[in-house]
Amino acid sequence: MTKIPVGVLGATGMVGQQYIALLAEHPWFEVRYAAASPRSAGKKYAQAVAGRWQLARTYSPSTGDLVVEDANDLAPARAAAIAGNCAFVFSALEMGKEETRALEEAYAAAGIPVVSNASAHRWTPDVPMLIAEVNPDHADIIPLQRKNRGWDKGFIAVKPNCSIQSYMTPIHALLSAGYEIPRLMVTTLQAVSGAGYPGTPSLDVIDNIVPYIGGEEEKSEREPLKILGAIQGNAIESVSLPRISAFCNRVSVADGHTACVSLEFGTKKPSIDEVKRIWASFTALPQELDLPMAPKRPIIVREEADRPQPRKDRDADKAMAVSVGRIRPCNVFDLRFVGLSHNTVRGAAGGGILNAELLTAKGYIG
Amino acid sequence: MTKIPVGVLGATGMVGQQYIALLAEHPWFEVRYAAASPRSAGKKYAQAVAGRWQLARTYSPSTGDLVVEDANDLAPARAAAIAGNCAFVFSALEMGKEETRALEEAYAAAGIPVVSNASAHRWTPDVPMLIAEVNPDHADIIPLQRKNRGWDKGFIAVKPNCSIQSYMTPIHALLSAGYEIPRLMVTTLQAVSGAGYPGTPSLDVIDNIVPYIGGEEEKSEREPLKILGAIQGNAIESVSLPRISAFCNRVSVADGHTACVSLEFGTKKPSIDEVKRIWASFTALPQELDLPMAPKRPIIVREEADRPQPRKDRDADKAMAVSVGRIRPCNVFDLRFVGLSHNTVRGAAGGGILNAELLTAKGYIG
Amino acid sequence: MTKIPVGVLGATGMVGQQYIALLAEHPWFEVRYAAASPRSAGKKYAQAVAGRWQLARTYSPSTGDLVVEDANDLAPARAAAIAGNCAFVFSALEMGKEETRALEEAYAAAGIPVVSNASAHRWTPDVPMLIAEVNPDHADIIPLQRKNRGWDKGFIAVKPNCSIQSYMTPIHALLSAGYEIPRLMVTTLQAVSGAGYPGTPSLDVIDNIVPYIGGEEEKSEREPLKILGAIQGNAIESVSLPRISAFCNRVSVADGHTACVSLEFGTKKPSIDEVKRIWASFTALPQELDLPMAPKRPIIVREEADRPQPRKDRDADKAMAVSVGRIRPCNVFDLRFVGLSHNTVRGAAGGGILNAELLTAKGYIG
Amino acid sequence: MTKIPVGVLGATGMVGQQYIALLAEHPWFEVRYAAASPRSAGKKYAQAVAGRWQLARTYSPSTGDLVVEDANDLAPARAAAIAGNCAFVFSALEMGKEETRALEEAYAAAGIPVVSNASAHRWTPDVPMLIAEVNPDHADIIPLQRKNRGWDKGFIAVKPNCSIQSYMTPIHALLSAGYEIPRLMVTTLQAVSGAGYPGTPSLDVIDNIVPYIGGEEEKSEREPLKILGAIQGNAIESVSLPRISAFCNRVSVADGHTACVSLEFGTKKPSIDEVKRIWASFTALPQELDLPMAPKRPIIVREEADRPQPRKDRDADKAMAVSVGRIRPCNVFDLRFVGLSHNTVRGAAGGGILNAELLTAKGYIG
Repeated sequence: MTKIPVGVLGATGMVGQQYIALLAEHPWFEVRYAAASPRSAGKKYAQAVAGRWQLARTYSPSTGDLVVEDANDLAPARAAAIAGNCAFVFSALEMGKEETRALEEAYAAAGIPVVSNASAHRWTPDVPMLIAEVNPDHADIIPLQRKNRGWDKGFIAVKPNCSIQSYMTPIHALLSAGYEIPRLMVTTLQAVSGAGYPGTPSLDVIDNIVPYIGGEEEKSEREPLKILGAIQGNAIESVSLPRISAFCNRVSVADGHTACVSLEFGTKKPSIDEVKRIWASFTALPQELDLPMAPKRPIIVREEADRPQPRKDRDADKAMAVSVGRIRPCNVFDLRFVGLSHNTVRGAAGGGILNAELLTAKGYIG
Repeated sequence: MTKIPVGVLGATGMVGQQYIALLAEHPWFEVRYAAASPRSAGKKYAQAVAGRWQLARTYSPSTGDLVVEDANDLAPARAAAIAGNCAFVFSALEMGKEETRALEEAYAAAGIPVVSNASAHRWTPDVPMLIAEVNPDHADIIPLQRKNRGWDKGFIAVKPNCSIQSYMTPIHALLSAGYEIPRLMVTTLQAVSGAGYPGTPSLDVIDNIVPYIGGEEEKSEREPLKILGAIQGNAIESVSLPRISAFCNRVSVADGHTACVSLEFGTKKPSIDEVKRIWASFTALPQELDLPMAPKRPIIVREEADRPQPRKDRDADKAMAVSVGRIRPCNVFDLRFVGLSHNTVRGAAGGGILNAELLTAKGYIG
Repeated sequence: MTKIPVGVLGATGMVGQQYIALLAEHPWFEVRYAAASPRSAGKKYAQAVAGRWQLARTYSPSTGDLVVEDANDLAPARAAAIAGNCAFVFSALEMGKEETRALEEAYAAAGIPVVSNASAHRWTPDVPMLIAEVNPDHADIIPLQRKNRGWDKGFIAVKPNCSIQSYMTPIHALLSAGYEIPRLMVTTLQAVSGAGYPGTPSLDVIDNIVPYIGGEEEKSEREPLKILGAIQGNAIESVSLPRISAFCNRVSVADGHTACVSLEFGTKKPSIDEVKRIWASFTALPQELDLPMAPKRPIIVREEADRPQPRKDRDADKAMAVSVGRIRPCNVFDLRFVGLSHNTVRGAAGGGILNAELLTAKGYIG
Repeated sequence: MTKIPVGVLGATGMVGQQYIALLAEHPWFEVRYAAASPRSAGKKYAQAVAGRWQLARTYSPSTGDLVVEDANDLAPARAAAIAGNCAFVFSALEMGKEETRALEEAYAAAGIPVVSNASAHRWTPDVPMLIAEVNPDHADIIPLQRKNRGWDKGFIAVKPNCSIQSYMTPIHALLSAGYEIPRLMVTTLQAVSGAGYPGTPSLDVIDNIVPYIGGEEEKSEREPLKILGAIQGNAIESVSLPRISAFCNRVSVADGHTACVSLEFGTKKPSIDEVKRIWASFTALPQELDLPMAPKRPIIVREEADRPQPRKDRDADKAMAVSVGRIRPCNVFDLRFVGLSHNTVRGAAGGGILNAELLTAKGYIG
């Protein structure tokens, strides 16, 4: 089988590196275009990331030899060349919001679908914000998006912030099983890789935590509402519940976001055993389609008193599974648990690749 | 002024070391008796802690020369000698609950008051569980306790678990100002020194957190209710509110427990500015009495977006102040904030010394 | 192909866990016997390690179901049963030296070869201390060892301490290329997993290093001399050079020992380029035999200014390769470099498995 | 006594903050002028460091109220005003080498002595590079420096790199006692605060070390030679020995550089006891003059097997003492030890203040 040629925008940053590493042996996709800032443009990828590569696993030799291009250069001839070379691009752009928004639109307008990790378009009404196991149906707004903008092949699909992915799939599984969740409190202990490289200064996390991550709590409180929403007319309508209150902390962990979650059920309340059963048996469209990046079990239930833990659980099932533990009644609401997922894989590049696989399977790519 | 002679039980452990270090220059108290397990007994204190001393500050030369005695040895002659030598003892015992309970009672029965950091007697109905700024009046159960047990000079007073001290004083200040708090959720990020030495294995906190500390959540949910209670008849009666739900996490911090707190007010709700005003201006009996270990301001309000932080704020005002920050409305309840205090000073030895100062000022010691 | 049945002594400890994890998918060996202390005996392996399992990767389901046996129980019937069930055992015993020595001898006497990670027999003259790429010929003392002790099938082979493995293969490669090394200085920065679990207390490595590891420097200075020695008559004779001076430090790293090495050459001195060429091209018997656990390149030369680094390089080639970098002239001796290897894989369980593969290929096992 | 008014250049950076904090209660000096980059200029100091302040201790209220000025603005009127306002300035500039060199010269030319922590003038032949206990006599080149440059009151004095200060005083004490040291090898484990803030990325030191710090090894091998040199004619002449070989590593420590040192003596070799005696009894001019920042004992000898350690020993004697331990024979050279000092106090701001005290006592300031 011939692989689908893809590009990566922002290929030299932290999340870009994860995309490049995860795509090194991907069965469907093959990196043919790596774009970054003008500073890296013109260098071979191997050169561009020398001394900045953050991962234990590495890039494929052929990607190392790719000449990095200027992500901003979309002059018509150039855009046509990219469109001819790539079926779509992953966006791991790390520039300002406005510039990202415009650049992603320019790629889409040029006929190049954009599967993005950036936050710029998360609140654009006709752009789906996808967690493949939670709202794969939101992808079906793409024809409307194309129509709205007069785009032919191009489109934009995004994924949400990494910090919510340790509990969104468990929440969705409970909602799907018919249990309402009007209120939810969450406190996260987030890994430093979420801030990129150089990112979090070491003085912030040696013998220390920082009880603040700019913008993170707002995203945590708001993004779930769109993800749990539905296509209505021309746009995705958010739901109004659960009300969410989030504390986001930066801690001395390289990878893996942990979330301590308390939630309130509506009048119908599952038992703890029922909750575990729902989570342990949960699967969704990515599992049914047997997508390459999909974990066999999206939610892994741990029974040990002290799990999940970042170092031991973040890599579960290709680092794509959410591990949950400490599932027990809440003294104030109804249910408490701890969720954990790998922030730069499940919460970023791996989640983006899974979205691209879903969009391919649904026929929007290729 | 002649100093009051005191003893320390469990003097070689982590909290015992803090007692010894904090008492090195105390204006009222002077260590004359250091007791520990049979393993240390018979050695000079300096020898007994060689290779185990965990603090940057050190013990006084005279304490280094004290011969450590076996804390369990309370034969009548021995007990009389200790009673003759010490006005009271601090208990930082680290043995089992039942043994601690019995041993503390034996000291009290021998006429030696016990100001304890151990958990054994926290739920004994006629034993006060003191935070000097919150419930100093609970000390006044001591005459009843003596009467109940037929003790003459001896008594037992305890302090609560370190993990609740980052928010109990702020909670108390709001209650004192007339605001009811029916419900409260808290997630803590706790320092490893709380587990003593060797305590938490390094593999638990390198690139990791552990979302579980045995028994800690139960203490966090229950102890505040006794502290906020009142003497009724022969015992201290707990209150029933607030209902509290706690997550306790171990993180890679040496000293300083951080707490992310959300709380619900009753019908009367203060503004954020009013909350800050209440906290910044809060003082209590230890401040009025100008006790040596009392912080000038028990609650320090930080306005920076990213404070309090353990490394920067735990040592505030002799490591006895609680620092609070990120004070803002909660999206689910009414108020959110982050509280921080030094777990082995404010939350353990320093809090114990402040309790002893209070008990001295109230006339129960000496 | 039928797999060779093997046992693991000390199967529940840190190194024992690594053995169990690495053997989960081994192409030649299959775990049939797991032994540990009486505390674990009688439990299923999964139960015995619940709450103590330290690795991200896990054990095979069949190992999880094995009933752990008491490693000390070698009554004749029991010994015969083990010998019937296992072609050999890996020893990851963590008991005292004398007990380990005696127990390993008892297994060998019972006809069960012992491939050991313990230090007890490292200085037994007729026991080979193997690094498979460095002194595979030392295995050929086994017939003499058997004869010396009147053992039939059993024997003992050990591996050296983990701390020297980050530079022994590079040193050996230079010696093999004909360059004498009369003197060598090394300072190590060692991972906490080397001390097992619970092992190093977290207070030792949060905002701290400990410039001392009991016994480690002596081992580092002495073990290389036996490894570089030769079979002479009935024993392995140590060499007298290089003279080695070692500083061993414990640092806040979970896995991966780093060594800063300066060495003096004899009269013949290679250029830096020649050193790199020797290392990059070095292979030995395990590579020729294509042993399953052997890295393709035992020494990986890194050209980046700031590599090797534990988090990025320890897992190179199944965590079995030694990564070297910062190769440059020494201002005092002749050559400086930084070496790094994975202490619980290359330096312990992985090295032990490679030794067993070598011994199997050489016909001493099976 | 009226305090001497001083300025701090680069007052908002990491070392600048240490200066400000250490000067908050200094008995001789008082900060009247705080200068930094144009970005901070015009803001009150408290504002300028809000969210960037890295220390547990804080600035004085009067410094918090100082309006930060642009360090580069030395127009004649401005220069005259500074000269009128400050007896001298501390330089903690963090700009490029050439700019720093020029700016420090401009201050000196304007009649304002510069006591610098920057590296720009370390190799200027008539600029003394001072460790107050080691080479206080080098200060006496100042009259020549003034003459060389036609400066009246101004001059420049610098201090060496922080990384060598954990062993330079011990080395000097041995040389002063008449023992030659022809060769020396050192491997450092350096704290992240040495790189300023944001400085070292947290991904570099979580479960990791970096065996490279740009330029640090060259400084470590070269700066001691000037410090140990002597004024000859118009310049300070370096010595040629010891030859030094240095490895510099970045580790997960906030403050406190550790050095593992092996050294070779000349024909005359002290015993280990003699070495300890020399170090424990060493004092120098700052102690004789009883300078406020001088430690009582510049070298503290620790006898415990596992000391010195950063968290426990860096703050010894106002964080100005060097702690040494693990003093023992070297297997290759003659003597081995571990030295430790606080890099941003002894190795930076505290050392600078001590230098200024020395220069004041010697009459070059004021």
